Amino acid sequence: MAVNFQLLLSEIYREVLPLQSQGALAYYIPELAAVNPNMFGMHLRRLEGEEAAIGASDVKFSLQSIAKAFTLALAVSLIGEKIFERVGVEPSGSAFNSLVQLEYEKGIPRNPFINAGAMVVCDVLIDQLKNPKAEILAFVQKLADNNEIRFNEETAESENKFGFRNHALANFVKSFGNIHHNVEEVLDLYFHICSIEMSCNDLTKAFLLFANHGKVFSTGEQILNSSQTKRINAVMQTCGFYDESGEFAFTVGLPGKSGVGGGIVAVHPEKYAAAVWSPRLNAKGNSVMGMKALELLTTKLGTSIF
Amino acid sequence: MAVNFQLLLSEIYREVLPLQSQGALAYYIPELAAVNPNMFGMHLRRLEGEEAAIGASDVKFSLQSIAKAFTLALAVSLIGEKIFERVGVEPSGSAFNSLVQLEYEKGIPRNPFINAGAMVVCDVLIDQLKNPKAEILAFVQKLADNNEIRFNEETAESENKFGFRNHALANFVKSFGNIHHNVEEVLDLYFHICSIEMSCNDLTKAFLLFANHGKVFSTGEQILNSSQTKRINAVMQTCGFYDESGEFAFTVGLPGKSGVGGGIVAVHPEKYAAAVWSPRLNAKGNSVMGMKALELLTTKLGTSIF
Amino acid sequence: MAVNFQLLLSEIYREVLPLQSQGALAYYIPELAAVNPNMFGMHLRRLEGEEAAIGASDVKFSLQSIAKAFTLALAVSLIGEKIFERVGVEPSGSAFNSLVQLEYEKGIPRNPFINAGAMVVCDVLIDQLKNPKAEILAFVQKLADNNEIRFNEETAESENKFGFRNHALANFVKSFGNIHHNVEEVLDLYFHICSIEMSCNDLTKAFLLFANHGKVFSTGEQILNSSQTKRINAVMQTCGFYDESGEFAFTVGLPGKSGVGGGIVAVHPEKYAAAVWSPRLNAKGNSVMGMKALELLTTKLGTSIF
Amino acid sequence: MAVNFQLLLSEIYREVLPLQSQGALAYYIPELAAVNPNMFGMHLRRLEGEEAAIGASDVKFSLQSIAKAFTLALAVSLIGEKIFERVGVEPSGSAFNSLVQLEYEKGIPRNPFINAGAMVVCDVLIDQLKNPKAEILAFVQKLADNNEIRFNEETAESENKFGFRNHALANFVKSFGNIHHNVEEVLDLYFHICSIEMSCNDLTKAFLLFANHGKVFSTGEQILNSSQTKRINAVMQTCGFYDESGEFAFTVGLPGKSGVGGGIVAVHPEKYAAAVWSPRLNAKGNSVMGMKALELLTTKLGTSIF
Repeated sequence: MAVNFQLLLSEIYREVLPLQSQGALAYYIPELAAVNPNMFGMHLRRLEGEEAAIGASDVKFSLQSIAKAFTLALAVSLIGEKIFERVGVEPSGSAFNSLVQLEYEKGIPRNPFINAGAMVVCDVLIDQLKNPKAEILAFVQKLADNNEIRFNEETAESENKFGFRNHALANFVKSFGNIHHNVEEVLDLYFHICSIEMSCNDLTKAFLLFANHGKVFSTGEQILNSSQTKRINAVMQTCGFYDESGEFAFTVGLPGKSGVGGGIVAVHPEKYAAAVWSPRLNAKGNSVMGMKALELLTTKLGTSIF
Repeated sequence: MAVNFQLLLSEIYREVLPLQSQGALAYYIPELAAVNPNMFGMHLRRLEGEEAAIGASDVKFSLQSIAKAFTLALAVSLIGEKIFERVGVEPSGSAFNSLVQLEYEKGIPRNPFINAGAMVVCDVLIDQLKNPKAEILAFVQKLADNNEIRFNEETAESENKFGFRNHALANFVKSFGNIHHNVEEVLDLYFHICSIEMSCNDLTKAFLLFANHGKVFSTGEQILNSSQTKRINAVMQTCGFYDESGEFAFTVGLPGKSGVGGGIVAVHPEKYAAAVWSPRLNAKGNSVMGMKALELLTTKLGTSIF
Repeated sequence: MAVNFQLLLSEIYREVLPLQSQGALAYYIPELAAVNPNMFGMHLRRLEGEEAAIGASDVKFSLQSIAKAFTLALAVSLIGEKIFERVGVEPSGSAFNSLVQLEYEKGIPRNPFINAGAMVVCDVLIDQLKNPKAEILAFVQKLADNNEIRFNEETAESENKFGFRNHALANFVKSFGNIHHNVEEVLDLYFHICSIEMSCNDLTKAFLLFANHGKVFSTGEQILNSSQTKRINAVMQTCGFYDESGEFAFTVGLPGKSGVGGGIVAVHPEKYAAAVWSPRLNAKGNSVMGMKALELLTTKLGTSIF
Repeated sequence: MAVNFQLLLSEIYREVLPLQSQGALAYYIPELAAVNPNMFGMHLRRLEGEEAAIGASDVKFSLQSIAKAFTLALAVSLIGEKIFERVGVEPSGSAFNSLVQLEYEKGIPRNPFINAGAMVVCDVLIDQLKNPKAEILAFVQKLADNNEIRFNEETAESENKFGFRNHALANFVKSFGNIHHNVEEVLDLYFHICSIEMSCNDLTKAFLLFANHGKVFSTGEQILNSSQTKRINAVMQTCGFYDESGEFAFTVGLPGKSGVGGGIVAVHPEKYAAAVWSPRLNAKGNSVMGMKALELLTTKLGTSIF
């Protein structure tokens, strides 16, 4: 029996709506704090092309950590598994010991999705690319088949100006020799990547890469091989949700990536990608409505990867 | 095209054999240190019933932490998701018996597979069962369809005698009020559970529970519902391999559980269970040949859950 | 100009009285929680014999950690500086990382005044003494010239019954091999020592040992040599006040030792000993009125060791 | 009986000489790594004016952390005890630049002698002084009665260029709001202060401030009051030697301050100051010969503050 995905999303929307006032916006930079906190959008795109959307599914929002999935994919496409000599694939455990862990592990970040790890990936991309910002943006535009995707320069600048903790992290990793380029250059790239703005609609298209054995959805171009794709999915599963990766595996059961802009994207390999955006975050930094909407999605479908 | 699983296991065996001298036996109790370090056995059992075996697949060995999957399943079958009010579902991100994290999180162990978490599960089972040891053993026997499965009393006694760190952990959790029964009673049960001995052949039969939406393989009895089964698989995926859960997801791509007795069991939901035993462990406490054999299995099959 | 010490103590009493309702009793065992929270006693005894007292200076109270100074002195008198191969002399920093520190430092407690360190000292005393409890009590009676000093068996039993964290600590140290005797035996001794009850009057007499180059005040018997005495004073200065040792050095400027029974004893080498008792504790576990009374004492005298 | 201090220093020199090849130079910047590792100088100056010297007591060396005693004294002279609202007085009990503790304590460094704490003191001085560098240098010149004392610009520049960990620390403290000025400005001042070069002879003169109730030795000018002086001495005692403050109190028994340039200064309040310089460091970052020489000094004199 075919599922009516549009109906499914309507149901989900109705059920998550009571959560609309729960959680709080990311407040640490003005650009994120200025977003309308009540926004909600969701988009689902199946590998065969079928799609369904509800709410603000075409409104662009700040990717923040979601963008780390793209830079990881690009780095793996460029230097393969060698990237994992400089960044691990283990979940980091609770945030309270992130710095001690980095110290204990001699500047090798536990995984590419914690900030320190994403900075190391940026450092690798600076090595590999002539014009890192432009080429990364072009890569994301290709994945999403949308040339209108942009960095938000104000967001990037605010992050750079107020991001003392990220400056601390980058300098700390540099002190272990695991950042090769200038700290300011790495951070500038890092903050730009996080500032990329895309809609749920863009994101499902782009993330089908991970559902499709590494092929770009719109063109079929092979970016990653099948094994590389599976491995990135595995890292998203175990490390993609700050200190709620276990919770996301437990309640949703799909690999995915979240960001403090309020977006979450999940992937069912060989089946679909689903993106949700709602800017109010729970205490762990993940979208309250987004987490619930995806839990409802896999519960109602009765399928997850587990 | 049908896969010849027997041939597949033979190939895997040939390819892992060069690793036979790598790693070291668990040495902390005489019973584990006395095992022949060169043993290797593997068993694969598909949900439809097909099976394949190689090496010492019928030799019993000490389950150790693998048994924690059974006690978790039993606890969930008895009290449902309430168990997760007393134990989390997040990877621990550090040594498998870290005391700090437990302190930071007020005595709620991060997940049911770290020692402290498994002790809390034992505490719950003492609450729920009239004769915990006998009933747990009967449960495992039922899953594996084998009445010969036993505790190893010598192993349990040695663990109790030399397990000062586990005594420390149990007392520490008790100090937060998250163990209700007598510490000695909880530890006695915990050590007995870890001492259960089963073969790879037994284990694939028992673990098909997790591939089969919670139904006992041999009888079809429904022990867990589909959602509960998926959730236990998710916890195995993110937390089942000490501080190598990310690595196992990355290289093997299946939920599973390992033990310092040298066993590893992996589950492909709706498809199969595979168990390997080889007692030499890597630095993280997982079987060297076991990790590699399962990586080869999913690589050669070209399928994992990701 | 001679100081009128009796007048001085009266002044101090007046000035600390407004603090009487601040802080809270130790609540973790019934015996400590049952004490009258408004008690205050103070006693000062100069090496030449002059003394002054105010309030409940003759009322016995539970020494708790103050007793660790006596067991350390006894251990040094028996095996000399060798004790410091098994326990360090460095302040421990904040309590939140005490367990991690113990792990990092392979079971060598940072100093003899943290619980783990005092347990190692007890382990040494079990080695050295035929009848540890009786001989330790006799030692303390000799120092205080008072045969009425006793253990409080109810307190010791309560600590043993509810002291799961101390059971955890002892087992943890044992797991590193730095406790040689049975954990239960060591803890029984440890809890008995902490349960000793003495008055401020008793304590100043006993602590003059540390002001007097290691000689017993009432008999002149040489227990420690001058260097050993100075070293114990140094450890009291840097480690005697949980995570307020720096604060005590800063505001009072004398070596000393506090206990959660509400007692504090300070020593001015070659001059005097001063003891205060008031059972309400601040957040760090030190007597509120006791800390203030001793600060006023050295401020009014205009002398400290700095 | 009068002590012949010159003879005493000769004896000490003979006894520490066998240690000359132990330990290693600070290697992290070229300027410190280029020092002759076999240098040794010692100077003792009594409050009444008597002095004694041996070896390279007039050779200037890099103060490094010793300078933190001067900036603390200047800050206390300017804003009094208010400085201790932004920096604590407790020993750090772990590596001297631990980031975790800083996180746990919300950006309030444990004491003014760990790097983060000294940076906060610099931040305060930038607030208080029109021309911080010049005024701090003038202050130190006044204490030592020597106008030739200078910053070493090469050392300061190297520290800035290679000091990624210090950049990490400053940004981390800034992220908690406990650095008010620009991170680069604070670090520039911090690195300059650490680069000040003085001889043992200079240092004993300057540190007599702390033995003399806050009066400048050469002029009698009152910089600190008696209580403030005692408190700085107390902080030096409990926090002045990285993770060997307990050891220094234990073996030497005087307040003091060390630096990775190989210098150590100790103060006996109301009596004398003693400075040693020998650039080979032990594993904790303190001069091997310096620690031993000062232990011998107080042992031979038979006096310490304890």
